[in-house]
Amino acid sequence: MNPLVRDRDVAFLLYEVLDVLSLTRLPFFGDHGRDTFDQFLATTRRLAREVLYPGYRPMDEAPPRFERGAVAVHPVMKAIYPRLAALGMANAPRPAEVGGQQFPLAVTTLASSYLMAANLSAYAYVGLTAGAAHLLEAFASEELKALYMRPLYDGRWTGTMALTEPHAGSSLADVRTRATPASGGHYEIRGSKIFISGGDHDLTDNIVHMALARIDGAPAGIKGVSLFCVPKMRVERGDLVPNDVSVAGVIHKIGWRGLPSLALSFGERGDCRGWLVGEPHRGIRSMFQMMNEARLMIGVNGVATASVAYHEARAYAESRPQGRLPAAKDPASPQVPIVEHPDVRRMLLRQKAIVEGGLALLARAALYADLAAYSQDEAERARAELLLGLLTPVAKSFPAERGYEANVLALQVHGGYGYSSEYLPEAWLRDQKLNSIHEGTTGIQGLDLLGRKAVAGGGAAIAALDEEIRRTATRAAGAGVDADLVAAVVQGTGDVLAVTAHLGARGLAGDVEGMLLHSADYLELFSILVVAWQHLAMAACATAGASRGDHDAAFYRGKVLGAAYFIRTEVPRIAQLCALCRSGEDSYARIRPDEL
Amino acid sequence: MNPLVRDRDVAFLLYEVLDVLSLTRLPFFGDHGRDTFDQFLATTRRLAREVLYPGYRPMDEAPPRFERGAVAVHPVMKAIYPRLAALGMANAPRPAEVGGQQFPLAVTTLASSYLMAANLSAYAYVGLTAGAAHLLEAFASEELKALYMRPLYDGRWTGTMALTEPHAGSSLADVRTRATPASGGHYEIRGSKIFISGGDHDLTDNIVHMALARIDGAPAGIKGVSLFCVPKMRVERGDLVPNDVSVAGVIHKIGWRGLPSLALSFGERGDCRGWLVGEPHRGIRSMFQMMNEARLMIGVNGVATASVAYHEARAYAESRPQGRLPAAKDPASPQVPIVEHPDVRRMLLRQKAIVEGGLALLARAALYADLAAYSQDEAERARAELLLGLLTPVAKSFPAERGYEANVLALQVHGGYGYSSEYLPEAWLRDQKLNSIHEGTTGIQGLDLLGRKAVAGGGAAIAALDEEIRRTATRAAGAGVDADLVAAVVQGTGDVLAVTAHLGARGLAGDVEGMLLHSADYLELFSILVVAWQHLAMAACATAGASRGDHDAAFYRGKVLGAAYFIRTEVPRIAQLCALCRSGEDSYARIRPDEL
Repeated sequence: MNPLVRDRDVAFLLYEVLDVLSLTRLPFFGDHGRDTFDQFLATTRRLAREVLYPGYRPMDEAPPRFERGAVAVHPVMKAIYPRLAALGMANAPRPAEVGGQQFPLAVTTLASSYLMAANLSAYAYVGLTAGAAHLLEAFASEELKALYMRPLYDGRWTGTMALTEPHAGSSLADVRTRATPASGGHYEIRGSKIFISGGDHDLTDNIVHMALARIDGAPAGIKGVSLFCVPKMRVERGDLVPNDVSVAGVIHKIGWRGLPSLALSFGERGDCRGWLVGEPHRGIRSMFQMMNEARLMIGVNGVATASVAYHEARAYAESRPQGRLPAAKDPASPQVPIVEHPDVRRMLLRQKAIVEGGLALLARAALYADLAAYSQDEAERARAELLLGLLTPVAKSFPAERGYEANVLALQVHGGYGYSSEYLPEAWLRDQKLNSIHEGTTGIQGLDLLGRKAVAGGGAAIAALDEEIRRTATRAAGAGVDADLVAAVVQGTGDVLAVTAHLGARGLAGDVEGMLLHSADYLELFSILVVAWQHLAMAACATAGASRGDHDAAFYRGKVLGAAYFIRTEVPRIAQLCALCRSGEDSYARIRPDEL
Repeated sequence: MNPLVRDRDVAFLLYEVLDVLSLTRLPFFGDHGRDTFDQFLATTRRLAREVLYPGYRPMDEAPPRFERGAVAVHPVMKAIYPRLAALGMANAPRPAEVGGQQFPLAVTTLASSYLMAANLSAYAYVGLTAGAAHLLEAFASEELKALYMRPLYDGRWTGTMALTEPHAGSSLADVRTRATPASGGHYEIRGSKIFISGGDHDLTDNIVHMALARIDGAPAGIKGVSLFCVPKMRVERGDLVPNDVSVAGVIHKIGWRGLPSLALSFGERGDCRGWLVGEPHRGIRSMFQMMNEARLMIGVNGVATASVAYHEARAYAESRPQGRLPAAKDPASPQVPIVEHPDVRRMLLRQKAIVEGGLALLARAALYADLAAYSQDEAERARAELLLGLLTPVAKSFPAERGYEANVLALQVHGGYGYSSEYLPEAWLRDQKLNSIHEGTTGIQGLDLLGRKAVAGGGAAIAALDEEIRRTATRAAGAGVDADLVAAVVQGTGDVLAVTAHLGARGLAGDVEGMLLHSADYLELFSILVVAWQHLAMAACATAGASRGDHDAAFYRGKVLGAAYFIRTEVPRIAQLCALCRSGEDSYARIRPDEL
């Protein structure tokens, strides 16, 4: 049975690497302790393994049907949804006053990784709902919260993000959906949205869309876009009344096939009402306040999708006999399991290093989010906020890109069988591909990292990162981690700081295009550093753990070898990529479309 | 309309970079000239664009059906096949005495790239047939040739390679299919094969399987495996009689969906006859004599699949408006086509560099194959054979691995639309994935390169490569290519030679496992060098071409920028990977399965 995510990894991150229990000293988390964390994790992973995972393949094979204007989900999903909603993941980290359980995000993030690994489409209904409800919680009027946020957090309804429009894609400045003020305090909404995940279904009585639209007369561009609550069914005198939201079409996605992706029309009959959430023309700003959270969720998805495939490949490699080792001279000797071939172990260790490095990064980012929100020390909150912002583009894109590479390797380990839909790795590979596209493409993450986050706070963010990494290096050296590993990460940190200063200076001197030209390479080198740091932290704890005795020796040894692999194969690329960022290499800047 | 492969690229390779016309001075190619080459190319590309390409999507959407023991292909394929067979690609490079046209492989390789880019499944029926017929031509008795080779080359029947068995996969030494000598000069065949592409269909009256089997009493292992001709219908007194070959099952492949991949049973009713091809127990050796050719065909497939997607992405990027450049301050200004964004041009230029570098490599390898077979100078034949052997693992794996990366980028350029099956990039991505698996996985190519080819001829192969690259460097410097590009490739060559000597010495000293531990990294660094060399050669010719006037200026400038991009971003990785190969990094050698 595929474990989806390794329980021991989760405990290691929470209680050995990140010391998440220290959060329980903060008032917001004061009612919690290891017992409540572990109980929540146990409930979640059991639901993932016993309920969500068995539904994955049927949902992949038979996507929701679109008939007579409505979407019908797979019967399996109908059975899953009430049990998933009952788990309360949508508001598990939210305050008790909105029905939440005040769990640290570090805990819920790791818990949610099981659900995503098991059945990412099924979990997405909840993840999207959490995002929509959180927006309402943060910016909506009390009346709107009572009407629409509560049923979302309760799981009675689901929510969506209705941002993208057909002509605009990632360019939210070009949103055209119109909002005309009406006398009842609401707005009349008219427009088309596309790629709306979970935009219609028959799981719940209602769906609440958080939609971007432009109030009549609003300025052009990003500063004229407002956020609205546009329900499928509006509440009128306690009843649910159709709100003129219709399904215009279905996108045939190559993955996430249990979750419909739709084109929606608002106001085709002139009777679609929306309620302003937050201030007029500040919709993008509101959205972006939730963006870190949404992007971390995509990152967890990427890690989870790589994780389930890694565990599948690992089990396959141990059970599939093929070939012999070079030393075996007797052709009549039995074939060995393919895990015995070093190149197969290379492919597995690479997946392990990506999955575990990525999971550690996500858990750490979630911890910073917890501190940023609930630390009682203002300086610590600010510092955590800076680190969270800095890590978010990496936490979103590394799992998407390297997770995809890991998923490719999981398929490759399965050989010809991996190329067939009789085995699951190809399905996870399809699923993973979306993560480099939605919630900001990898290209956009690179621009965000270099153009905004790395130079944030006048260098305070990256200085904080430097401090954190040095602290880890000191701890690793003290624990007895190989000196070359520690030195490589320290050296890499210095290289990244220097290239950041160099590029930042170029931008300050007015050459913003030159500064950003190698943003993709910068994202890559920065990601290597940040994930190498996670591996160094894990190696430090694993070395310390191993020194405490034989308990879990194989687990700890695997951690150390994974760290050695990642640092020795990846960190040397930092210097090379830094040189590329500094170089005058401008071939793609110079090339004209007719020369391509 | 997608050009599939750019005509100007093909002419550039044939007549500017590789001077393929010089082959016409050899007697075997004496009847040919630019007119016959261009005519064959014109006929082929028209067939590809007008007949094969329109059939691609329907064949991907509706794979062959397996009903009542037989496979029925898509009606579109039935219409395509006669026209494809009439092209005569299966024996275009073969001698006139077997009905061939004596074209250089350099020409037919590039011609076939259009067919594969258009519809790889459709072409595969011909490609597999060519391989089977060529095996018969090389090793079969005259009687067998008359009965089975001729109809294959004529396109009246198709052929397959029936190597793989369920329990053995890549390990051909473990073939279990039995061949029992019978009184009629044939053998009774009994066994199971899997992943047999084109193993059954209703396109032609007969299918000829080239099958590996073990003659009763043969030694265990690779040296007891023989090659047999096992037809679906055997010829008896001029009639076709069923030969007890049955379809045991269909594999649901994720790509190449127009071509059935089957499990076959030989001799379920005890009446399956096979005829020995070549000497007993030498089947693997015979197969391997055809292996270079088969692997080059996979390489062309990889390039072609990346090429068609690149051209699709390029057209999409020019037509899809989205966002504005940072300098555009007016949010009401129109959106720009996404090709205007530097990071989109980066993704396109990267695809271009992979596609064009790969195509040049395949054309060069084919040219060496032509020289190895038909040069009148024995030393030149031997040298070309060595170079062909050395380049083959790269020519097979680079397009599979980097072509896959290019296909991922083509999807990414399409954004959310790329993630849907309404657009084709996802289909090509699925197709491409097979190329890292069949005809020897990428891992196997790495072992072949480092363990055999790089040390072949006591270093003669790699010395010949060194000479070739230095000749190109001299030519590039003379043509006025940027000195840093020339120097980088020369430096990279030196690094590769040195690390090869280092690793070879380790192997000679008895540490074969240590020598081969980083074979994956070695394949990667060697591939970078070999493809950078192609780019340098193209840059030299493009610089020379551009200096002849304004004609084709954009084309030539694109070549130079593609070379600059590839060399400046990839070649620096050679030194890093060489260091890794020399290092003691042995994490995956040391890790035990329970530590993964």
